[in-house]
Amino acid sequence: MKIIIIGGVAAGAKVAAKSKRELPEAEVHIYTQDDYVSYSSCGMPYYIAGDIKDWDKLIVRSIEEFEKSGIHIHTRSEVTKILPADKKIVVKPLDKEEWQFIEYDKLIIATGASAFIPDFANIKNKRIYTLRSLNDGIALKEGMNKANHITIVGGGYIAIELIEAFVKNKKKVTLIERSPFVLSMLDEDISSLVQEYILANSNNLVKIINNDTVSEILGEEPVLDIVTSKGYGFETDMVVVSAGVKPNVEIAKDAGIEIGTTGAIKVNSRMETNIKDIYACGDCAEKINMISHTPSWVPLGSTANKEGRVCAINVCGGVEDFEGILGSAVLRYDMLNISKTGLTEKEALKLNYDAVSVNITKRDKAGYMPEVKNVTLKLIADKRSHKILGAQAIGCGDADKRINTVSVGLLQGITVEELIDVDLTYAPPFSTSIDILISAAQILKSKLN
Amino acid sequence: MKIIIIGGVAAGAKVAAKSKRELPEAEVHIYTQDDYVSYSSCGMPYYIAGDIKDWDKLIVRSIEEFEKSGIHIHTRSEVTKILPADKKIVVKPLDKEEWQFIEYDKLIIATGASAFIPDFANIKNKRIYTLRSLNDGIALKEGMNKANHITIVGGGYIAIELIEAFVKNKKKVTLIERSPFVLSMLDEDISSLVQEYILANSNNLVKIINNDTVSEILGEEPVLDIVTSKGYGFETDMVVVSAGVKPNVEIAKDAGIEIGTTGAIKVNSRMETNIKDIYACGDCAEKINMISHTPSWVPLGSTANKEGRVCAINVCGGVEDFEGILGSAVLRYDMLNISKTGLTEKEALKLNYDAVSVNITKRDKAGYMPEVKNVTLKLIADKRSHKILGAQAIGCGDADKRINTVSVGLLQGITVEELIDVDLTYAPPFSTSIDILISAAQILKSKLN
Repeated sequence: MKIIIIGGVAAGAKVAAKSKRELPEAEVHIYTQDDYVSYSSCGMPYYIAGDIKDWDKLIVRSIEEFEKSGIHIHTRSEVTKILPADKKIVVKPLDKEEWQFIEYDKLIIATGASAFIPDFANIKNKRIYTLRSLNDGIALKEGMNKANHITIVGGGYIAIELIEAFVKNKKKVTLIERSPFVLSMLDEDISSLVQEYILANSNNLVKIINNDTVSEILGEEPVLDIVTSKGYGFETDMVVVSAGVKPNVEIAKDAGIEIGTTGAIKVNSRMETNIKDIYACGDCAEKINMISHTPSWVPLGSTANKEGRVCAINVCGGVEDFEGILGSAVLRYDMLNISKTGLTEKEALKLNYDAVSVNITKRDKAGYMPEVKNVTLKLIADKRSHKILGAQAIGCGDADKRINTVSVGLLQGITVEELIDVDLTYAPPFSTSIDILISAAQILKSKLN
Repeated sequence: MKIIIIGGVAAGAKVAAKSKRELPEAEVHIYTQDDYVSYSSCGMPYYIAGDIKDWDKLIVRSIEEFEKSGIHIHTRSEVTKILPADKKIVVKPLDKEEWQFIEYDKLIIATGASAFIPDFANIKNKRIYTLRSLNDGIALKEGMNKANHITIVGGGYIAIELIEAFVKNKKKVTLIERSPFVLSMLDEDISSLVQEYILANSNNLVKIINNDTVSEILGEEPVLDIVTSKGYGFETDMVVVSAGVKPNVEIAKDAGIEIGTTGAIKVNSRMETNIKDIYACGDCAEKINMISHTPSWVPLGSTANKEGRVCAINVCGGVEDFEGILGSAVLRYDMLNISKTGLTEKEALKLNYDAVSVNITKRDKAGYMPEVKNVTLKLIADKRSHKILGAQAIGCGDADKRINTVSVGLLQGITVEELIDVDLTYAPPFSTSIDILISAAQILKSKLN
């Protein structure tokens, strides 16, 4: 049994390790264009910030460890074609002008995602960076060290983590975001508070330009000129493009593998594509939203790991299903925790739910405890079924705890009334006697009736 | 409509406030033996520790605020009898030799619980303390200030919080616990780790004597002599009896109100007793365990608040049910968080579940984050149904988050397989890419099959 995996960051590395454990006699190979496998992309902002001193701390499992456990790693090796009829792939080593034809019994596509690059004239400029691979992270940190002013294009999760990293390193930052506020995946009553917090907690180093996009990046090193669509112009030392990601599906598409409506590879709950013996998992694969049961594409390391595990079990002859995602996410800016699960109100309305919401701010601990902080929680429910649809929480207090609590409820279609009955833990250093989550559910219940 | 409430700490205060909001024209009275109403008993260890400087910070709502909102507070007033046939109570002011007969339309018993006092000869000694009321807390702090060595009898939640308070004040502490480890409500594979942590993090000020009880307290001020059942003897300056609590049910029992098998007042989900127009809620009332559906008595401030709310709605003519408890609890000792929900393994076995468990230790955040700590998580499931029965977590990392997440699952009878599918939030400062909860569920799944 020869298992070939294309890509080796999160999902690919997981499939390899788990397959070898499930089926020790299998021959397992990872092919990747990258210099590294099995690393935490999510940790790179903290390496850039300086919280983590050495980038090799981000490597979960070294190439030597993989090889020692009998897994063959082929770095700097591009897979240029899949030939499903012959059950072969075509591999081109980056450093050689040769093509290898490699047979497989089971093929796993774990090609991940790439930064979405807007169509700037000057995109090849060395001072324009993206952040996906470990090499990107190492280069970005080196670039940052030489810059005084950094421009971030886009205001998603990674962009916010990068602001924190740059501010820690005393860099001036201008961020350009096309939406009215950063983190446009959240509802505006939450994202506006996040933006306010960032501006108030960045030592006056950060400027955010909203409702605008970069139209041109002109000039050469050492100084670039940014021109926005609204005609605003300024000089910068370096640009990070963090304007979203897209799944790497080209070789899959080319081989006749079905692509879903989200643009990612369509898979069933066993991580199987439409072509026999070809699987896909991780950021290149489409997911199902467990609330709306609609296709969804949220590329996250936690999901990639779970899909990798499920994929390996099925590849090795077992049976396991990946049921889908809830859109859970968390990030930190300085002391502010930002967390969400399920549908936002705007997503719910778009999906034709009769969404009702409540947005309250309350203490995260007993008010008399010295370490008490606030949490703002938004809870969204469907007026017809009374089912909870999603939640968003931010605060210097423990926002994430409340969101994970909601996540489990979402999995089982919890109603607002049922959520009121949850027996959450209580002691003064941990919550108020009526937790903000219960308070929010109580208010939402009266709104529903 | 005249609503009379006996007791005014958590449940009683909540019934009063909520009833007045639901039915502004109602006449609402609280009768209590105490000098205070509406305070946080749970906060007293932090007042004793010195984390909270003034005890009045523990008062949630002052008597003046109650009176201003039209709620009549009668402190230092003992209710000596309930006369259900006449719909009257008999009140004896503590400071006067008189008895008042007060009529009610609806009567709410919220008499709380008292410290269980073992049968020592010398129990009236001024240097023997308990901790239930705010007056107890104030006296205990004054007592502590004069002591060098303090003996704690019993090793439950409050005892552990008091060790922290005493160690912070540089007092020597000897704790005597009849079980092999403190926190005997937890399974021993967890409670043993807690005891180990306490001993290792108490500046050598704490000694714990297990498998023994106090048989006698002899002597007079300023020094008491403790003699244990095993014949061990030592001198101490002060004793805190924290050997459990018992519900205050005497007047209820005397009035013919049904007492449940747990010794607390039997109520239905509307908080109604067996006698029309008499309700009970808070620590004096029996609860239903939502997992086993058996009567249970876990007196906690969070439950008392919820029951008070439900009680008030029903008292005022609405309809609301209190579904029960899950046995969720949390406490902190120094940096260690200790949290549980649902049944322990020993409780599950006692209730004839075919309990299987897993106990794992894992990092609470990505391993490369500077603030990473460990969490130990025990997950218990039923072998026949695969349903999760309970969880316990301890650690200097975020243990409580994982337990609240399980709580919601328990409410809905989540299985081990379903728990694996939960989409928990992930970012390096918050969890590992496969959260310890998911890892534990994955291991438990393989144990079940």
